[in-house]
Amino acid sequence: MNPLPHEVTAELEGCRAELDHMSVELDQAYEELTILHRLSATLRVERPVEEVLHDACAGLVAGAGLAFAAVRLAGGAGLMPTLAVAEPEAAADGAGSARLRALVDAAAAELLATGYVAVPGSILEPVDALARPRLAELTPAAIVVPLRIGDEAVGVLLAAVPAGAELLSSVEAKLAESVAGPLSIFLENRRLFERARELATAVLVSLVRAIDAKDPATRGHSERVSALARAVGEELKLPPAEVDRLRLAGLVHDLGKLGVPESILLKKGKLTDEEFAAIRRHPQAGVDILRGIEPLADLLPAVLHHHERYDGRGYPAGIGGEAIPLHARILGVVDAFDAMHSRRSYHEGAAVAACLGEIERNAGSQFDPRIVAAFVATQQRSAVGQRRLAA
Amino acid sequence: MNPLPHEVTAELEGCRAELDHMSVELDQAYEELTILHRLSATLRVERPVEEVLHDACAGLVAGAGLAFAAVRLAGGAGLMPTLAVAEPEAAADGAGSARLRALVDAAAAELLATGYVAVPGSILEPVDALARPRLAELTPAAIVVPLRIGDEAVGVLLAAVPAGAELLSSVEAKLAESVAGPLSIFLENRRLFERARELATAVLVSLVRAIDAKDPATRGHSERVSALARAVGEELKLPPAEVDRLRLAGLVHDLGKLGVPESILLKKGKLTDEEFAAIRRHPQAGVDILRGIEPLADLLPAVLHHHERYDGRGYPAGIGGEAIPLHARILGVVDAFDAMHSRRSYHEGAAVAACLGEIERNAGSQFDPRIVAAFVATQQRSAVGQRRLAA
Repeated sequence: MNPLPHEVTAELEGCRAELDHMSVELDQAYEELTILHRLSATLRVERPVEEVLHDACAGLVAGAGLAFAAVRLAGGAGLMPTLAVAEPEAAADGAGSARLRALVDAAAAELLATGYVAVPGSILEPVDALARPRLAELTPAAIVVPLRIGDEAVGVLLAAVPAGAELLSSVEAKLAESVAGPLSIFLENRRLFERARELATAVLVSLVRAIDAKDPATRGHSERVSALARAVGEELKLPPAEVDRLRLAGLVHDLGKLGVPESILLKKGKLTDEEFAAIRRHPQAGVDILRGIEPLADLLPAVLHHHERYDGRGYPAGIGGEAIPLHARILGVVDAFDAMHSRRSYHEGAAVAACLGEIERNAGSQFDPRIVAAFVATQQRSAVGQRRLAA
Repeated sequence: MNPLPHEVTAELEGCRAELDHMSVELDQAYEELTILHRLSATLRVERPVEEVLHDACAGLVAGAGLAFAAVRLAGGAGLMPTLAVAEPEAAADGAGSARLRALVDAAAAELLATGYVAVPGSILEPVDALARPRLAELTPAAIVVPLRIGDEAVGVLLAAVPAGAELLSSVEAKLAESVAGPLSIFLENRRLFERARELATAVLVSLVRAIDAKDPATRGHSERVSALARAVGEELKLPPAEVDRLRLAGLVHDLGKLGVPESILLKKGKLTDEEFAAIRRHPQAGVDILRGIEPLADLLPAVLHHHERYDGRGYPAGIGGEAIPLHARILGVVDAFDAMHSRRSYHEGAAVAACLGEIERNAGSQFDPRIVAAFVATQQRSAVGQRRLAA
C-alpha cells in the first residue's frame, strides 16, 4: 500500500480534530439545554423559595458535574435570607460537608456585605481573602454569579469544582450564569407575589385596627386573638397552610361587629334582650362581609362558629363537641381568654394565671378540653420564656 | 499523484458528512439556547401579558425563521383572552396579515373550544377541518402546542411556515415546544400574582361595602365614586397604573368615616359645630387607617384632600387650585355628584342632568373646571350609550 500523501492525512486529521471539538461543544450545548428545560419547569412562584433554589443547584451539579452549587440570598423585602446547597451524594455526608456549607455561607455573605461579586464568567480568585477559614482548602476554584432584581444584588449563586480537580472552566462558568438568569427573574416574580399577598393582610390588619379603635376596651383584641390562635395551631402541629388560615380567621373573627351599633357595643350597663340579640348576630354578619372574598371562603366556618360552646349551649347554631369546626373551637378558647384578660372595665385586668384557671375550669363545658390543654401549654411556655429573659 | 485508496476517500467523505450534520445540530442547539435565554429575561409577572406573549412569539419567529407565531389565550380566572401575533416585517402589512390573524384566532379558538390540540411535536394536519376559511391557503404547515396550567389547557402557541415553503420540520416543532414550557409557567405565575393582587381589592370592597351598609343613604357610594373616578381618569388619558390608583383611592376615600360616631353620621337634623368638626376629621382619619399599608401609601394625598375646594375654602388644609393633588380634585367632583344624586333623603333623587348642572355651576369655585368638563363628557357619553341601548 502506498503511503498517503501528506495533505490527505493532514485533512483527515484536521477533520477528526474538528469532529472531536464539535462533539464536545454539542455535548455542552445539550447539557445547558437540559439544565434550562428542567429549571424552567420548577420556577413557580407558589413553591417554597428554598425548594426552588435547591432544585436549581441540584440541576447544575448533576448537569455540570460540580462538587457543589449553592445559592445564598441576602434577604430584604419579600425575600428571606436563605442558603440552599446541592452536592453529589458522595460529598454529602460527614464533617467536610458541614464545613463546606459554613464556608459557602461565609464567603457568599461576605460577598454580599462588601458588594464585591466576581464578574460573571470569571474565576473567583481571592477566595481566601474573603472567607475565613479558607474556602480554598476545600475547593480550588469557584464561580460566584450575582442574582439581581433590577440593579439590586439580592443573592449569589456559587458553583465549585471538587478539591483535586482541575480549575473551573469557562464552561461551568457559562452554565452557572445561564442558570442565574431565570433564577433572578424567579426571585423578582416571587417578591412581587409576596408583596401582593401581604397587601391583603395589611389591608385586613389596618381595618381591623380601625374597628377595634372604636372600643377602647378591645383595642388590639383581633390581632392578639390572631397571634394566640396561631400559637395554638402550631402547638397542635397543624400544617403551615392551615396555621396561616387560622391566623387570618383570628384577625377577622369579629369583623361582623361592624354591623352592631356603637350604642350597644359601648354600653356600660346591662344589655336588653334585643341588644343581646344584636350582638349575637355578629358571627353571621362577619360571614356576610367575608362571603364576597372568594380566597377567604375557607375562613367562614371559623368566623361563624367561634361563639359555639363545647356543650352545645353557644350560638349561632348551638352545635357542640367535634361538630364545631376545629378552628372555631380554637378561636373560642383564645377569644374568651383575651376578652377576660384585657377587658379591664369588667375584670380589672385579671392576671394571666387567673384567666388560665378560669379557662381550665370551663374545659369540657364551654371549651374543648384538648384545645384548652394546648393553649395552656403555649401560655406556660411563654411564661417560662419571659421569666428566663427577666432573670 | 496516485489515486487515493477507496477506504481513505470514504473515511474523508464520511468525516465531512458528519461535520456537516453536527454543524447543523450545533446551530440548532445554539438557536434554541439563544431563544431560551432571551425568553427567560422577559417572563416578569408584572409585565402586561400581551407584551410577554408577543415577545415570545417574536423571539420564536426571529430565531426559527417562521412565517408567524401566535399565542391565543382562552381566558379564565386571572387570564384575559389574548391574541399575540408576531410576523417578520415583510409579512406584516396588507390584507394578508389581517386575514392571517383572523385565521389564527379562529383556528386556535376552535382548538380550545373543542379541546382538540395537536400533540406537541406533531404537525397539525387537519387545519382546514378546524378553521374556516382555510388556514391552509395561507400556510402549508403549522404546529400547535398547548399552554397548560397543571392539567388545564389555557391557550395555544401556534407556529407556521410561510406559504410556498417546505413543511414544518421537527426542529421548528421542538423550538415551539421549548418556548411553550417556560411560557406556561409564566402564565401560572401571572395567574397567581393576579389573584393575590385582586385579594387586596376584594378585601377593601367587602369592607367598604360593610361600612357603607351602616348608612342606607350612602349604600354603594364608595364603589360608585371609584367607578366614576376611573372613568374621569380614562377621559383625561392618565396612564393605566395611575387610573388604577385613582380607582382604589375612590374606593377608600371615606374609610375615615369608620371613626365618626354613627349618631352623627345618621343624624337627620341640623349638625352642631362639634358634630361638623367630627365629620371634617374623616379625611385625616382615613389617612391614619391607610398609613400602615405601605403599598397604598400613594393613595394618601387623594384621600386627605378630597374635600378641598378649588377656591381654597375646603378642608382639611384649605389649599386651592393646582395645589390640590389631581386625584383629590377628581374625587371632589365625582364624590359631590354621587352624594347629590343618591342621597334621596336630602335631594329626593335629583336627576342626572340636574346634578350635572349643579356641578357645572360650581366649576371654578368648588371644582376644577377642567375636571368638571371631563366628568360631564363621560356622563354625556354614557347617557348616549344608554339611549342607544334602549333604542
